[in-house]
Amino acid sequence: MAHQEKARSGVEWRITLGDGSSKSLVPDAGPISRIWIGLKGLIAGLVLKVWKFLMRAWDIGVDDPRKVIHCLKVGMALTVVSLFYFMRPLYKGVGGNAMWAIMTVVVVFENTVGATICKSLNRVFGTTLAGFLAFGVHWVASQSGQEFEPLITGASVFLLASTATFSRFIPSVKARFDYGAMIFILTFSLVTVSGYRVDKLFDMAHQRISTIIIGTSLCILVTMFICPIWAGEELRILISRNMDKLANSLDGCVDEHFNYNGELKDSDKQPDKKLLGYKCVLSSKATEESMATFARWEPAHGRFNFKHPWQQYLKIGASMRSCAYCVEALNRCIDSENQAPEFTKKHLSNICLKVSSNSSSVIKEVAKTIKTMKRSPSIDFLVEEMRSAVQDLQKELNFLPKLLSPPEVLHPERKETEETTSTTHLLEVIPVVTFASLMIEISSRIQAIVETVEELAELAEFKGEAQEKAKQNQPNTNRILASQLNDDQQTMKALERV
Amino acid sequence: MAHQEKARSGVEWRITLGDGSSKSLVPDAGPISRIWIGLKGLIAGLVLKVWKFLMRAWDIGVDDPRKVIHCLKVGMALTVVSLFYFMRPLYKGVGGNAMWAIMTVVVVFENTVGATICKSLNRVFGTTLAGFLAFGVHWVASQSGQEFEPLITGASVFLLASTATFSRFIPSVKARFDYGAMIFILTFSLVTVSGYRVDKLFDMAHQRISTIIIGTSLCILVTMFICPIWAGEELRILISRNMDKLANSLDGCVDEHFNYNGELKDSDKQPDKKLLGYKCVLSSKATEESMATFARWEPAHGRFNFKHPWQQYLKIGASMRSCAYCVEALNRCIDSENQAPEFTKKHLSNICLKVSSNSSSVIKEVAKTIKTMKRSPSIDFLVEEMRSAVQDLQKELNFLPKLLSPPEVLHPERKETEETTSTTHLLEVIPVVTFASLMIEISSRIQAIVETVEELAELAEFKGEAQEKAKQNQPNTNRILASQLNDDQQTMKALERV
Repeated sequence: MAHQEKARSGVEWRITLGDGSSKSLVPDAGPISRIWIGLKGLIAGLVLKVWKFLMRAWDIGVDDPRKVIHCLKVGMALTVVSLFYFMRPLYKGVGGNAMWAIMTVVVVFENTVGATICKSLNRVFGTTLAGFLAFGVHWVASQSGQEFEPLITGASVFLLASTATFSRFIPSVKARFDYGAMIFILTFSLVTVSGYRVDKLFDMAHQRISTIIIGTSLCILVTMFICPIWAGEELRILISRNMDKLANSLDGCVDEHFNYNGELKDSDKQPDKKLLGYKCVLSSKATEESMATFARWEPAHGRFNFKHPWQQYLKIGASMRSCAYCVEALNRCIDSENQAPEFTKKHLSNICLKVSSNSSSVIKEVAKTIKTMKRSPSIDFLVEEMRSAVQDLQKELNFLPKLLSPPEVLHPERKETEETTSTTHLLEVIPVVTFASLMIEISSRIQAIVETVEELAELAEFKGEAQEKAKQNQPNTNRILASQLNDDQQTMKALERV
Repeated sequence: MAHQEKARSGVEWRITLGDGSSKSLVPDAGPISRIWIGLKGLIAGLVLKVWKFLMRAWDIGVDDPRKVIHCLKVGMALTVVSLFYFMRPLYKGVGGNAMWAIMTVVVVFENTVGATICKSLNRVFGTTLAGFLAFGVHWVASQSGQEFEPLITGASVFLLASTATFSRFIPSVKARFDYGAMIFILTFSLVTVSGYRVDKLFDMAHQRISTIIIGTSLCILVTMFICPIWAGEELRILISRNMDKLANSLDGCVDEHFNYNGELKDSDKQPDKKLLGYKCVLSSKATEESMATFARWEPAHGRFNFKHPWQQYLKIGASMRSCAYCVEALNRCIDSENQAPEFTKKHLSNICLKVSSNSSSVIKEVAKTIKTMKRSPSIDFLVEEMRSAVQDLQKELNFLPKLLSPPEVLHPERKETEETTSTTHLLEVIPVVTFASLMIEISSRIQAIVETVEELAELAEFKGEAQEKAKQNQPNTNRILASQLNDDQQTMKALERV
């Protein structure tokens, strides 16, 4: 069949090879079919790319549904503000300037309440200030005659734009009024330059400012009352979550070190992700700073009053990073080539695991303090436990020399080889000593974290948990008493039966 | 005199105290003078604050004059674009939409060429894409009758605004097209909503896009041809400057450690600033990333071709940070409470100083490679030297046990006290061992930096310095030969004289 078909299509070229076999020469595909194949490949690649992109977007949405809610909020605010354009009475009020309301919503609406309020206020005040200044310049220019008017206008635009641009380089201005400075330049240029043409300058400015106020008010209302995302709350969650990550990372790291090549192979089951949690701490400085900046613009809400010490969270973040640097160094010890001999590891493993579990429980307790905004009653106890574990570790390190020089103690006649033997041992023991001293350093840095958190508790007036605990203990004691009474009664009954 | 004046002002109240002395009761100042004093204080405080602010601004300008130049460039671009409004023929061409050109300049003009081009292209393509889509929606809406028109328009605004806002959360979109997505939402909403009122929609869109193109072209021209600041160049300078800081920091840190409490007190004279240079490395991740993002938008310029491997600079930055973490740990060793005893310090000081000076010269050489964009002929030699210094340090650590147990070697009869003595010593020696092992770790991380830089040299095809060196050496050899010849001749003459 196949042969017949080939024969039908015309002449077939066939080449005979050295080993007697023969190969038919298939003619090249025509240009159209080649283009078609290329196009198919291109489309398939494109579809695959788009599909992957959509899958990633889907994952982002599933990970944090609030992002999706934010998008819907933006859509809603924009649709509402568009109504202004459709409703004739409102349209007559503000005229073509309704576009400024739309523009405001697009530009001002941010993810968090603080950022939205910051941008809104910046926009309103930047516009107003620039508007007034532009009026002044316009008046001066109009008084100075036809010739000088463009000159004065141009010079004022040049001067004020340059100055305002420069102010954006100053850190204190950049942190809070960056957007305001840009809006200032924009409005000033627009109003000054339009002043030359538009006669009803005052009306225009009035309409523009009122539309901007409509836009910003709408944004602030939507962002504050529909599933609000508070920058301050985000900052607090970020800090406490990072603390948990740091604690897990520390735990995982020490486990990994002592179980590596050891009998327990649980470490293989642990995901690497948990171990590398400290990297989140290292890389979240910029986020923390922007959140703290925005949080200051937020009104009192929930458990945060207006003067909540947001700057203190940055200090906590810094102390956490300082601890994370050490965890990074610790983590590198795992990969280190010259691993310590098993016996020294075994000697220190228990106490190191104790120090790490105590340290991480301190961090977790502190994270809980931030999470619940309540002083922990057990933090002093936990810190004290960590300290005593560290002291135990130091004591155990004291015993290392004993372990290092067994030949000499057991066989005093081998004195001549003593130096080389103990030398080898000291070199071998260096990784463990480094590891242990890093652990000690980490525990001291954790104490610094605890101090910054206590400062926060002081400044933000966190309430203690002591009273609540006492209340919770009451029923427990009663229950214990009741069960004891119950036991006693049962014993009595049993005795009676006897 | 004073008494007379007081008497003149009227009755004086005087109180006599227990010890016989008396005090006059001065009447309260009147409300007007109190307000005046308060006002004076307020004004003085305000003037002082403004003065301080201006001084800080002046310092920023003096530190980096390019910031001032950037401001002048913005002023210039704005003034030029304002001319459009003043020139009647141009004004007739684009009408009231000239305002879009001004707005574009204000919003798009950024500090670096890359950022300006990025924003410009985002603005142009975002506007164009949204314009076309809005046309389509407008056409569909107008075909569906009076009733459905606002409904379709509203729904499309809601849907597209939400989708585009969501796309801004996707990292790959955020890095490159964040501004474009915002402009897309803005333009789409404006055009769709205005479409309901303005009949000459096509004209409006055409004028708007052309004014935006005028604005962006002006920005790109000014930013590229008047004292351009290239993001790529900035990235390169940042990386090489950070490397120098890291090297100085490492040097200063080791000096400080070994001169602390020692005889040499040079460390007091050293500024702390130099020592803390590694903090710049730790905190410049965000800057590096944004610079690398913007650098990709820049056209080929100077020694950078279009496909310059900007991502590799981020890798170098990451390896530098990994090294800086260790320097941070090293720095903390200086402040450590339990300082090592002097004799162990002295024992290791020379070799540690050698390792640190070798390490820092490797970093400086690598920084020079990036600065000059030429392969260094001596880097292999320097790395080898660093490695051998590290090996020497490890050898010196071998000798520590000898130093630790002098009593036992010298007095074998004191065997019973041996354990306690050597125990104390081991604990005392821990800081030095930690310090030394950190130094070893740092040198291995420096090798990682060297590797990433070599990858960069490979990818970016840096030229070698070998040939140039050879050329430079030629005259030197000649000069030596010549001077030798000269000496010989002088000797001959002297001999002749004899």
